[in-house]
Amino acid sequence: MAHDLRTQEIKNPIDVAEYLFKRLHEVGVRSIHGLPGDYNLVALDYIKPAGLSWVGNCNELNAGYAADGYARVKGVAAIVTTFGVGELSAVNALAGAYSEYVPVIHIVGYPSTTAQRDGLLLHHTLGNGDFHAFSKMSAQISCAVSLLNDPHEAATLIDNAIRECILKSRPVYISLPTDIVQKKVDGDRLKTPLDLSYPPNDPEKEDYVVDVVLKYLHAAKNPIILVDACAIRHRALAETHELIEKSGLPVFVTPMGKGAVSENLPNYGGVYAGDGSNKGVRERVESADLVLSIGGIKSDFNTAGFTYRVSQLNTIDFHSYAVKVRYSEYPGVRMNGVLTKVAQKMGKLNIEQGPTPNNDIPDDEIMSPSPTITQAWFWPNLGQWLDPNDIIITETGTANFGIWETRFPKNVTAISQVLWGSIGYATGACQGAALAAKEMGIKRTILFTGDGSFQLTAQEVSTMLRNKLNPIIFVICNNGYTIERFIHGWEDSYNDVQEWKYKDLPAAFGALPGQVATYRVETKDEVMSLFKNDEFASGDNQKLRFVELVMKWDDAPAALRSTAESTAKRNAEAAANN
Amino acid sequence: MAHDLRTQEIKNPIDVAEYLFKRLHEVGVRSIHGLPGDYNLVALDYIKPAGLSWVGNCNELNAGYAADGYARVKGVAAIVTTFGVGELSAVNALAGAYSEYVPVIHIVGYPSTTAQRDGLLLHHTLGNGDFHAFSKMSAQISCAVSLLNDPHEAATLIDNAIRECILKSRPVYISLPTDIVQKKVDGDRLKTPLDLSYPPNDPEKEDYVVDVVLKYLHAAKNPIILVDACAIRHRALAETHELIEKSGLPVFVTPMGKGAVSENLPNYGGVYAGDGSNKGVRERVESADLVLSIGGIKSDFNTAGFTYRVSQLNTIDFHSYAVKVRYSEYPGVRMNGVLTKVAQKMGKLNIEQGPTPNNDIPDDEIMSPSPTITQAWFWPNLGQWLDPNDIIITETGTANFGIWETRFPKNVTAISQVLWGSIGYATGACQGAALAAKEMGIKRTILFTGDGSFQLTAQEVSTMLRNKLNPIIFVICNNGYTIERFIHGWEDSYNDVQEWKYKDLPAAFGALPGQVATYRVETKDEVMSLFKNDEFASGDNQKLRFVELVMKWDDAPAALRSTAESTAKRNAEAAANN
Repeated sequence: MAHDLRTQEIKNPIDVAEYLFKRLHEVGVRSIHGLPGDYNLVALDYIKPAGLSWVGNCNELNAGYAADGYARVKGVAAIVTTFGVGELSAVNALAGAYSEYVPVIHIVGYPSTTAQRDGLLLHHTLGNGDFHAFSKMSAQISCAVSLLNDPHEAATLIDNAIRECILKSRPVYISLPTDIVQKKVDGDRLKTPLDLSYPPNDPEKEDYVVDVVLKYLHAAKNPIILVDACAIRHRALAETHELIEKSGLPVFVTPMGKGAVSENLPNYGGVYAGDGSNKGVRERVESADLVLSIGGIKSDFNTAGFTYRVSQLNTIDFHSYAVKVRYSEYPGVRMNGVLTKVAQKMGKLNIEQGPTPNNDIPDDEIMSPSPTITQAWFWPNLGQWLDPNDIIITETGTANFGIWETRFPKNVTAISQVLWGSIGYATGACQGAALAAKEMGIKRTILFTGDGSFQLTAQEVSTMLRNKLNPIIFVICNNGYTIERFIHGWEDSYNDVQEWKYKDLPAAFGALPGQVATYRVETKDEVMSLFKNDEFASGDNQKLRFVELVMKWDDAPAALRSTAESTAKRNAEAAANN
Repeated sequence: MAHDLRTQEIKNPIDVAEYLFKRLHEVGVRSIHGLPGDYNLVALDYIKPAGLSWVGNCNELNAGYAADGYARVKGVAAIVTTFGVGELSAVNALAGAYSEYVPVIHIVGYPSTTAQRDGLLLHHTLGNGDFHAFSKMSAQISCAVSLLNDPHEAATLIDNAIRECILKSRPVYISLPTDIVQKKVDGDRLKTPLDLSYPPNDPEKEDYVVDVVLKYLHAAKNPIILVDACAIRHRALAETHELIEKSGLPVFVTPMGKGAVSENLPNYGGVYAGDGSNKGVRERVESADLVLSIGGIKSDFNTAGFTYRVSQLNTIDFHSYAVKVRYSEYPGVRMNGVLTKVAQKMGKLNIEQGPTPNNDIPDDEIMSPSPTITQAWFWPNLGQWLDPNDIIITETGTANFGIWETRFPKNVTAISQVLWGSIGYATGACQGAALAAKEMGIKRTILFTGDGSFQLTAQEVSTMLRNKLNPIIFVICNNGYTIERFIHGWEDSYNDVQEWKYKDLPAAFGALPGQVATYRVETKDEVMSLFKNDEFASGDNQKLRFVELVMKWDDAPAALRSTAESTAKRNAEAAANN
């Protein structure tokens, strides 16, 4: 009876699913990734009326990757799966989003609350009456888990989950049981938009940290700025750009920070990743007497195998959760406010001009008469062809190491999974990124993947066709898992893959006549003509373009070689006590 | 120092990976499914020397499904993945194996124990130094988790995991850190094969239960036997067959029990699934005064939506973990011993001959002049074309409901996921089953999947080609997720899929000339000619055969219709207290 009374008190009752999808629209989601399943079907009816579109992926892992790619362009994404079978297929993609700080809202269609209460032996269950096993699994890779079992708390749980997702920039998990979809919540709540601002730092503490930072900054003779992934993921780019501009300090990016700053700036120096950097960059960064590290993630692949030679005594780390000056930590002080105040208060600095960065094509490659497309030749050359605002997705493997050597025009968004490194990711992410680009009027989304990696998630090209997307897809045809060969198993058959006719796939996936243009390039000349071909290169082209880019099986970017070597060494290290 | 001494005591030291793969060979594994990843590469070098082959799947989910299919034919399977990214992609397939009692050994290549101990920020981690998150997730869907962090317990943990996997018929999880692969264990242990026999029942307790069963059996006037999934999965088929033969009782199977008994027996009655059964079967089963239910799993789809009309007062349940007579439970009494003694001791029974089962083509379908291939016409007809020993895989959807109407020749193995019901499963499982069939000299593996389902895992056709397998693949082309339409969203676009040119895929996946034959059948006549075509039908055919089987988008087997209706009703049920 109490429940009935409470329901009657709702002035503007709307269905739980309507509330959920309208909130998603409010925070900027326009497309929902995922697959239908009987526990989510009724909820899917609410997508279109909320002003959203349904993508309809080929499988849930791919849908998860796509949502990740979409979120990296638009700021947040949502994926709908069904209980058990659907959600578990997506879990690797969501773990990747957790690892790499990407805000993805995962909505899982659940059996009805009565079926759960009665422990029914339903399909898509483990057959043991346990309806919590899967949410427990996802709890490991979610920053919030909201189980909507009671309509009276549904709206609050939805709001909390969306807010946590965006503020922590990590996946959240929302269960939506079939009998909750149409329960009523108070629609008037939607009149108040969600508060998505970061809680401000304690002003006294923030000022204290700013003073400490300024003290070291003013004492330094040749400081530099190093921008990493979390500057992007935790939305500190505006503050970072202000600091770069006002200070005029030499600025470098890490591999995961690629795209965070304009590479046309006179003070832009290149990509720093320890031994994976080119010589000029390495010397400049490692000779700095102060490194302002913004949003750093010092993972193995982001540091070319832990080869940073930057002392913590010369480092100030700016994070979303703390600032760290040498070994002094200031927990709970978010970087954004500190960076802004440092930029405002720093005044004139001692700046030593760094050496000109060197991101050009190596001399021996320019001179080489060989027509073979080498990794060392391709990636620096690619920079000439890119346009401002391009979105570039590179797969774990030769592509996401090669791209270190590509100098970007301004406003390029670079997407790759340097930390999580799940092969297959890039093709899925390309679907989501291309869709986000279309929604935002960005003209070109460009994917570089390898043949081995492409095979994991190839069918998402079908989803691109279904959604009339027009990315430019390069599949590097080099006969298998080259990154693995450099770690172990140089010619072993487990690093081979079946040789596909890659460019025949879009047609088999049902491309309409004229919807796709396919190409195969095997020589440097063919690459250069392709780049000059307007039908291929134009951002206004409505065609999906699919290129087989032929490279040698035993060729890899220098940075990949050195990182792989250190990885192989670490894998073989004996436990000290054995 | 103690460690060194213990190492020196090993008389016949062999590497941990050698031990592991030799044990797998011992229990019957001949092929290892999975993908390479840098944390498992060195381990992969031990596969070939142990007499095993490496399959090399396109992605880990598909590899997991394939391992499941392989295990259902050979009794056990193994899959190797890499830490984080690889293992999580496989987790849905392994949850399915857990739910449906399929013994799959999951070996995960882990970072070295030193890297784990030091909490290094490695690729494929969540970036938080937690190396246990993924094993915790898999613990939800594994009957044993063996983390090989200490070489001194590695052999014991490996043996335990393999034994648990086979005895409990469920997945186990084994971590194999890179620095443990080549640590030494005692090779002499391999001289003693693993003991894989079930612990015998307490004889006094078993005899007691046998007497109770016999009492009810002798008192019954028209008892029947109903065989379900766990008779297959928990290896009680020999005992079941003996009981069927000695008793002469009418025998029925559930959908998940399909294939468990010879459908040529004079006392075989058909498939019982409540309202999903045909009339003759339903009346006979529901009028029985005693049902001997062997290995029952009374899940929604296995009972056509919980529509059994068999009273527990008339039921004796035989399980792997207990026997249940009416409402009296005898926990810890395994069915195998009880079934054997009942068959030996029962003597002559009161048997009332049941009605002739009716699994034939419905009259209105035989008479229909329409050339359209209907579900009602196809599945009964299929029975005429099947051969003894065929392996039939049916996908969740129209196929795994339709197959209820197909009368099998003897020794057919039927594979489907009636409980877990993950679409995409069947194509992956077909790869594993076809490989197992090849190893065992079984001639034909036949897959029936739907177009929507096929899109999830289509690339595993490439793995079939790579491994020179020759299954017969039917893709039912009916424009999307028909099973979902019958539950909700009859014409909604979220139940549509992109229209592929399905039969062009094997060529795009690199089929060699002559390696594949493709077909498209749109009429009943075309189906009948195809079945008569020797090049197509022969078990000696070395070609992979790929058929587009065109059916209507709004057609489904009767059993699917009634099950979908009850599912839709249950999904909509309001919680009683709201």
